[in-house]
Amino acid sequence: MKIVIVGAGAMGSLFGGLLANSGNHVSLIDIWKEHIECINKKGLLIKGIDEDKYIRINAFTNVKEIKEKPDLIIVFVKSYHTENAAREVLPLLKEDTSVLTLQNGLGNIDILSKYLGSKGIIAGTTSYGSTILAPGSILLGGSGTTCIGELNGSITKRIKDIAEMFNKAGIITEITQNVLGLIWTKLIINVGINALGVLLRVKNGELIQGEFPQKIQKALVEEAVLLAKKKNIKLIHKDMVKQVAAVCEQTKDNVNSMLQDVLKKRKTEIDFINGAIVNDGKYLNVSTPVNQVITDLIKSIEEKYEKQISF
Amino acid sequence: MKIVIVGAGAMGSLFGGLLANSGNHVSLIDIWKEHIECINKKGLLIKGIDEDKYIRINAFTNVKEIKEKPDLIIVFVKSYHTENAAREVLPLLKEDTSVLTLQNGLGNIDILSKYLGSKGIIAGTTSYGSTILAPGSILLGGSGTTCIGELNGSITKRIKDIAEMFNKAGIITEITQNVLGLIWTKLIINVGINALGVLLRVKNGELIQGEFPQKIQKALVEEAVLLAKKKNIKLIHKDMVKQVAAVCEQTKDNVNSMLQDVLKKRKTEIDFINGAIVNDGKYLNVSTPVNQVITDLIKSIEEKYEKQISF
Repeated sequence: MKIVIVGAGAMGSLFGGLLANSGNHVSLIDIWKEHIECINKKGLLIKGIDEDKYIRINAFTNVKEIKEKPDLIIVFVKSYHTENAAREVLPLLKEDTSVLTLQNGLGNIDILSKYLGSKGIIAGTTSYGSTILAPGSILLGGSGTTCIGELNGSITKRIKDIAEMFNKAGIITEITQNVLGLIWTKLIINVGINALGVLLRVKNGELIQGEFPQKIQKALVEEAVLLAKKKNIKLIHKDMVKQVAAVCEQTKDNVNSMLQDVLKKRKTEIDFINGAIVNDGKYLNVSTPVNQVITDLIKSIEEKYEKQISF
Repeated sequence: MKIVIVGAGAMGSLFGGLLANSGNHVSLIDIWKEHIECINKKGLLIKGIDEDKYIRINAFTNVKEIKEKPDLIIVFVKSYHTENAAREVLPLLKEDTSVLTLQNGLGNIDILSKYLGSKGIIAGTTSYGSTILAPGSILLGGSGTTCIGELNGSITKRIKDIAEMFNKAGIITEITQNVLGLIWTKLIINVGINALGVLLRVKNGELIQGEFPQKIQKALVEEAVLLAKKKNIKLIHKDMVKQVAAVCEQTKDNVNSMLQDVLKKRKTEIDFINGAIVNDGKYLNVSTPVNQVITDLIKSIEEKYEKQISF
């Protein structure tokens, strides 16, 4: 299959590498010039699989350099770049191109649908982990599962083809008939963990130790669950507060991705996590005061990176 | 006048030093042994007045060492020690002892009244600044004004005597007939500045730069103002949101006291500032969601001092 992967961060590079390695024609796009140059020069090095291996992939910094229109576009940019990414890839679309988002957070499907039409869009979640070690080199951080599905839940030929291709590439993939439920479930886990981890500057496990972090986490999650109910989303777990706590326990030594962003003074995905809950809440008349304060705090912190008193 | 000062931190030491210097019989009490020993050995050094000066004061680590019952007790402990302080000084009370609190935050008057009877209690605010330089040595940080008053607003002989004595000692002091309004006004300024400064790790001036910090500050202050109205407190300024912003501007290079506490991983006065708004709100059925989240965050941070990822 001809595949274009937009966003060659840790996850985009991992998927691109594995799919190229199993014989697909993969093009990676990213604005990170150094990374793209290294991949073109030496191939992509994936560490953490059986043996260190350089995989040849075509990598580009500009969509215009891609000459053949792909069958599948996988979007792996940070959510705040989705809109730009959608505009960029528009000229690559054929009649039957599928566009798969495996991004974190809420709102990516809507943005992609707006620019590319909803017919082509498929979505999913992945629990694979990956880290950039250096330009051109990534580390597979434990395996996981990837779930993909049509937005309307039907099991189509294309979704089966993509799942089969992923599995052949070693990406363990299942087809789901409830992709929105999956995305919301993952969203709510992020709603309960990420921003709170930033504000307390602690690893995931600390969020379920002590009265007050748990109280805030519960409030964040309950607001999001109410909203999901109002939207008729079928969440995967009955008790999401318990589930978020379970994830904190399972990942207790992890520094969550938003905290990693803040420690490096980078823009966060707050608008697509707690901020998305607030926005949807306004639209649907669901009160989300705790997500509101937490969102405003993270946005304040982003504004103040250069003014912080070190400690 | 015979005066006992409970809490020989920066402010307690300053008031004690100035009052002793003008001829009063002052006893300082604090559990900070090193500071007390230095004062007893060499006197208290106050820097930042005309000339460096060692002032002789009796200083104690235990109330039981004080043999003569005072005419006035001034409480200068951190608010979370007020209850203990009240229990400790109970044996020192005479029929006509006045107990003055110049502490920050809400709730100190109630605690002192509970243990010592409300008859003796007088209250006030002070805008003097002082810093501990080393055990036995403090720095006067710019002068200010002190306002004191009877809880019922009447102007009594004792309040006039104390104001006169303070002024003689060089502590510029006014008598107020609205001491609760003053205390609440100061409280609300702290409500809008302190915890928010902690969460963003910035100096006061940064809180009024940018959309999101201002939005949170406004929400914090408005909840407290509503509560004050419900309690028939007469605040000193009509527009408290504007006043808090003005204080941020005037003190733009200050690291607020709660942020100083957090940077040193000390207990904060959150329960007597934003936490007091939440508690009063519950009691009076006033909704305070923003102060609630902010209070829970600070209490979480206190719980997690040893678990914080440094950055």
